[in-house]
Amino acid sequence: MRNALAVTLLLSSGIAMADEGQWQPYQMPSIADKLQSRGIEIPAKQLADLSQYPMNAVVGLGYCTASFVSPQGLAVTNHHCAYRAIQFNSDAQHNYLEQGFLAASLEQEPSAGPNERLYVTEAVTDVTAEVTAKLSDDPLTRYEQIDANQKALIKACEADDNYRCSVRSFHNGLEYYLIKQLIIRDVRLVYAPPESVGAYGGDIDNYEFPRHSGDFSFLRAYVGKDGKPASYAKDNVPYQPKSFLKINAGGVKAGEGVFVAGYPGTTNRYRLTSELKFASDWLYPTQAKRFQSRIDTINAMGAEDEALAIKYSGTKAGMANRMKKLNGLLDGFRATDIATIKQQREDEFRAWYANQQGDNTLVASLEALVAEQVQQIQTRYYFDNAQSSDLLQAAIALYRLAKEQQKPDEAREQGFQERDMKLFAAKLTRLDASFDKRVDKTLWLADLQAYLAQSNRVATLDAFFGDKGPEALAAELEGFYAASELGTQDKRLAWMGKTPAEFEASQDPFIRLAVALFDTNMALEKTDKTLEGKLSIARPAYMQALIDYNKVKGLPVYPDANGTLRISYGMVDGYQSRDALYKQPFTKLDGIVAKHTGVEPYKAPQKLLAAIKADDLGQHRVASVYQDPRSWLCRLFSCLDKPEDFNSVPVNFLSSVDTTGGNSGSPVFNGRGELVGLNFDSTYEAITKDWFFNPEITRAVHVDIRYILWMMDKVDHAQNLLDELELVN
Amino acid sequence: MRNALAVTLLLSSGIAMADEGQWQPYQMPSIADKLQSRGIEIPAKQLADLSQYPMNAVVGLGYCTASFVSPQGLAVTNHHCAYRAIQFNSDAQHNYLEQGFLAASLEQEPSAGPNERLYVTEAVTDVTAEVTAKLSDDPLTRYEQIDANQKALIKACEADDNYRCSVRSFHNGLEYYLIKQLIIRDVRLVYAPPESVGAYGGDIDNYEFPRHSGDFSFLRAYVGKDGKPASYAKDNVPYQPKSFLKINAGGVKAGEGVFVAGYPGTTNRYRLTSELKFASDWLYPTQAKRFQSRIDTINAMGAEDEALAIKYSGTKAGMANRMKKLNGLLDGFRATDIATIKQQREDEFRAWYANQQGDNTLVASLEALVAEQVQQIQTRYYFDNAQSSDLLQAAIALYRLAKEQQKPDEAREQGFQERDMKLFAAKLTRLDASFDKRVDKTLWLADLQAYLAQSNRVATLDAFFGDKGPEALAAELEGFYAASELGTQDKRLAWMGKTPAEFEASQDPFIRLAVALFDTNMALEKTDKTLEGKLSIARPAYMQALIDYNKVKGLPVYPDANGTLRISYGMVDGYQSRDALYKQPFTKLDGIVAKHTGVEPYKAPQKLLAAIKADDLGQHRVASVYQDPRSWLCRLFSCLDKPEDFNSVPVNFLSSVDTTGGNSGSPVFNGRGELVGLNFDSTYEAITKDWFFNPEITRAVHVDIRYILWMMDKVDHAQNLLDELELVN
Repeated sequence: MRNALAVTLLLSSGIAMADEGQWQPYQMPSIADKLQSRGIEIPAKQLADLSQYPMNAVVGLGYCTASFVSPQGLAVTNHHCAYRAIQFNSDAQHNYLEQGFLAASLEQEPSAGPNERLYVTEAVTDVTAEVTAKLSDDPLTRYEQIDANQKALIKACEADDNYRCSVRSFHNGLEYYLIKQLIIRDVRLVYAPPESVGAYGGDIDNYEFPRHSGDFSFLRAYVGKDGKPASYAKDNVPYQPKSFLKINAGGVKAGEGVFVAGYPGTTNRYRLTSELKFASDWLYPTQAKRFQSRIDTINAMGAEDEALAIKYSGTKAGMANRMKKLNGLLDGFRATDIATIKQQREDEFRAWYANQQGDNTLVASLEALVAEQVQQIQTRYYFDNAQSSDLLQAAIALYRLAKEQQKPDEAREQGFQERDMKLFAAKLTRLDASFDKRVDKTLWLADLQAYLAQSNRVATLDAFFGDKGPEALAAELEGFYAASELGTQDKRLAWMGKTPAEFEASQDPFIRLAVALFDTNMALEKTDKTLEGKLSIARPAYMQALIDYNKVKGLPVYPDANGTLRISYGMVDGYQSRDALYKQPFTKLDGIVAKHTGVEPYKAPQKLLAAIKADDLGQHRVASVYQDPRSWLCRLFSCLDKPEDFNSVPVNFLSSVDTTGGNSGSPVFNGRGELVGLNFDSTYEAITKDWFFNPEITRAVHVDIRYILWMMDKVDHAQNLLDELELVN
Repeated sequence: MRNALAVTLLLSSGIAMADEGQWQPYQMPSIADKLQSRGIEIPAKQLADLSQYPMNAVVGLGYCTASFVSPQGLAVTNHHCAYRAIQFNSDAQHNYLEQGFLAASLEQEPSAGPNERLYVTEAVTDVTAEVTAKLSDDPLTRYEQIDANQKALIKACEADDNYRCSVRSFHNGLEYYLIKQLIIRDVRLVYAPPESVGAYGGDIDNYEFPRHSGDFSFLRAYVGKDGKPASYAKDNVPYQPKSFLKINAGGVKAGEGVFVAGYPGTTNRYRLTSELKFASDWLYPTQAKRFQSRIDTINAMGAEDEALAIKYSGTKAGMANRMKKLNGLLDGFRATDIATIKQQREDEFRAWYANQQGDNTLVASLEALVAEQVQQIQTRYYFDNAQSSDLLQAAIALYRLAKEQQKPDEAREQGFQERDMKLFAAKLTRLDASFDKRVDKTLWLADLQAYLAQSNRVATLDAFFGDKGPEALAAELEGFYAASELGTQDKRLAWMGKTPAEFEASQDPFIRLAVALFDTNMALEKTDKTLEGKLSIARPAYMQALIDYNKVKGLPVYPDANGTLRISYGMVDGYQSRDALYKQPFTKLDGIVAKHTGVEPYKAPQKLLAAIKADDLGQHRVASVYQDPRSWLCRLFSCLDKPEDFNSVPVNFLSSVDTTGGNSGSPVFNGRGELVGLNFDSTYEAITKDWFFNPEITRAVHVDIRYILWMMDKVDHAQNLLDELELVN
């Protein structure tokens, strides 16, 4: 089979084959032919079944993806996904971020932290009928009905509190699915390389290729002795997953078919061109400007105060990542005129639709609502930012909670129900870890000034700050922080559960401001909900028409990413990055040495460098990352991806699979469903895939399983873990 | 023939073939087999003959290379080589740097400036016997004899003042050649694209690839009506060169053999490893630190004063270029451990030599002298820099001139003879164009402080500044500039020709300092000359032994670059830039559009962008930059350099020819000796080739002739010039 595949690829290589689509597992049989043509042998029906291998080994972390790799609940994910767990266990004496961590036995595996969870998706049920039954024509009522229906479904589903349930909209409200996930509450840290390996290249290499990140870590799921989920307890036992992934120690070669499974967050591929234009021309540039200014402020203040810099390091890393993504989006829109491409496709669809239906009110009415929404976003933008202070946000949330708690639980806004209270308190508690009054005040002041400099003003806010010049404003804010008790954790938490009247009687300036802004914020929320109610008719209708059209045209039909379990497929492949610059699909160990400067983020650990220098590659050495017949011919014809003398351990590799944020940690499978890598990033040129999938330049970046195994074997001597894995070849 | 060549290349491609060597033309027959294996058909004997095509069409500009391309003296070179000529003709009304320039007829061709020259090398004569006849054993006497012998040869040769003559040392003094060049003194500007084309990418793209520079310009040589060189006169006539280059409008393809002819400046490939280590570990880092600090100072001062910024723009560009080169050298030494490679080769040579000779005093004695020289450079470094002020340099040169003029002309130091006086005066005049007292003072102050902070001190300098703290020192320098008249051009020039006594009586502080430092500087010069005298025995002896060794080992034997006419050969080829990053050999027009931001240095002219957008490529369009059989096969096997659908005009290309600074503007020839491009740069990874030639990564960057022809035809409509060229295909 492998040879047959190789020959197929030889003949197909270079021919662009779109690997677009973040597919719902149940859809896999509908693309069985595409999977087959990529050499993916595992039956599509098997992939559709969440109770079968390999999908029942794929789990969520809430913000990332992981997968079980041993019968004892061992799970592998990205280093950056296990970051909080590593940080939680680190202190000045044991800095596991710096040194890495390896538990020599089960007894030595510490808790990953009280808030870490593993979610095992056990059922995904179509609840479209339930959510959309007997909806009112009044937009606001309609919105509230949809919301109430969802809450009722969740409540019923969560009767067993070992489960977390959620209802997600697919195709912009055309379909709804209820997702039921087993919650594993005792997660432990097993093995993590040093951050200098896990995030080698740091911010500089983020979204870039060639890449050399060892972005992997191992966690373990624990349950009570009865096999049921339980909170951390010393005598809990390893969870025995229904199945766990086989690992192919031989990895993949260029041209081989691969697929990933995971929880991609958000894409906007079916939006109107006008929405793309609003994002590219107004929203992203406006956000980028504000982000850069916030990063600059934190940098400047951090340069003068190291403790402050450390406090904001996490916030800043997140901002830097978001900033690079924004820049990537804006650069991508400049490099490829996506708006024109999308407009052309949209025009074709409109023509087809008009021809079918005799009119075009469908698109026109959606277009009108979108214009209304754009208007609303622009109007609110500066006002919302003017409430950016962390303490004001806390006050607003606390007062809202007091108001919501006046209602029966099922009538409360999502996020303020009893099921949310643990997270609510955790968020209020966590605030201190990344908060400094001076920074919060400086950033808030800038946002207030931006608000005051524009014309969309709100009287209740202006009553506080509207008549103040820059200096008086700064002095006023100074007074807020001096007089408020919300900066103190226990005082802040004490406000949970107080009555609205207590808030209204408070002299705390942040609470006073929160109370004053309440009606305005609620009115804006009502406007939003009313608009959402209108869109809950227009968007599904549009999507249904678009799906009909795509089916007729043979275009892929899959829903936008929405944080639910998906499968993407593709092949291991390099790409033309720009004119005369070709990026080959595999990086090797030598590239780590070449980048190493001894200065972060290029400060590889000595043990790693020593193992490379000693050429201690063992059975992980790969002579060629190309398939045999091709290698032979490439000796004659200098091939696009130089095949000869790879002679190293592959570190990272590229594939054409369709991913987005949330796919971090996703297992990368070969055609037989064996683990060959972990997804952790995508290339800079590919960032615009959130709006438009361009198969020429869209590549995901994966850690090669051979690098993980080599690190475990030759660098960190994690023999105990290697023994747990099921290695095939 | 072409098909046979293609097949050969198909089979040889990918096999590293070193194309090392900047060969003296007379050496070409000795490498005839190598030329042939690269597909260079033109007979080696023909290339060795400076009176024949194509070598008699290759000319020097003093700092660059050019070549005749029409029977009417039209010469093509780089835009950056014609920069001074374009600047000379530009003013606020006619900014030809910004707009570009095209003379519609001969009458409209302006002078390139009074100092522009074209040098036609007519004879290169071995004068080793004359220079090294009957030399003394006393080192200083020996040095002076060699110097006197050279001056005598030059004087005799320059009896006809239409010629410039020079004697150059080859193989570190093993051989000497007298070079006789016809001087064309009336050079005119014919055609230059805008700087936004000629230097597209500016400093950012300097030394980088993928590159998209239209780095070309046309000049024309004029002579008197008698056909003899003459200074600019309106009724001079175009020079009729002995021959001019045929232009192959079809250009070259990947894998084809090419060669360049030009005037490479300096390489250090035969130096001892200890000399390389001194450069990499001390000299370059020390220089880089000082350069960066000077650039920072000029930037900071320029940010506050635009006029000052403009004045120093040329200086800064030169410094930025030098800085990038220094960084490239240092990065290159980090990327490849050249010292170890060289040491190994040197050890092999030493072993061979000791085995031949029974002892190793040869290398040991050179090593000792080199250690002495290193010591001398380090000792002088801060003292020499402490004299860096432009005004102090002028005072030192003027006083030295007064002293030298006490001697008969032939006994004077080179640079102070009658033949040098025009250049001497020009340099003193030009000073004002890039001089500002505040900058000069700030830079000098920093150099003085660096001098005072270290221990190699000179009493005569310390007598002026040794006891001063930072503020007193700054005040003292302030006084220098306030009291000196050297800042005024005519007063500065008036010191040319004054007597030593007049200098010694002057109260001008810079002149006082110059007089005070004279004896110390002369003593240091004497030490240098004595050391040079010793080296004039040791280096040639070492080189002779090394040449013998290289011949035995079959290694190339060519002299280090020394600003004389050389030929290098190689093939059109991409390269592996770093792990997983392959640079393909040709860039295309689309790459210009992709880089264009509208902000310099990526501000392509509208007419250029419009022509690309209109796809107005005419017969300059190239379907593929690969040879036919390869293209056919590459359709099946994804080739290293993607062949299909190039469908553009090639802009720049890479080849493996061996070049260095001074090769700018060098014609790039195909195997038949037809012009296919202009050399203008090399890649960043290749910068260390000055010390060590690594065939894997050493690539020169050329403007493709097809881009030049397309620009002339479709963008600038230079039909008059196109008609002058001899295009073949």
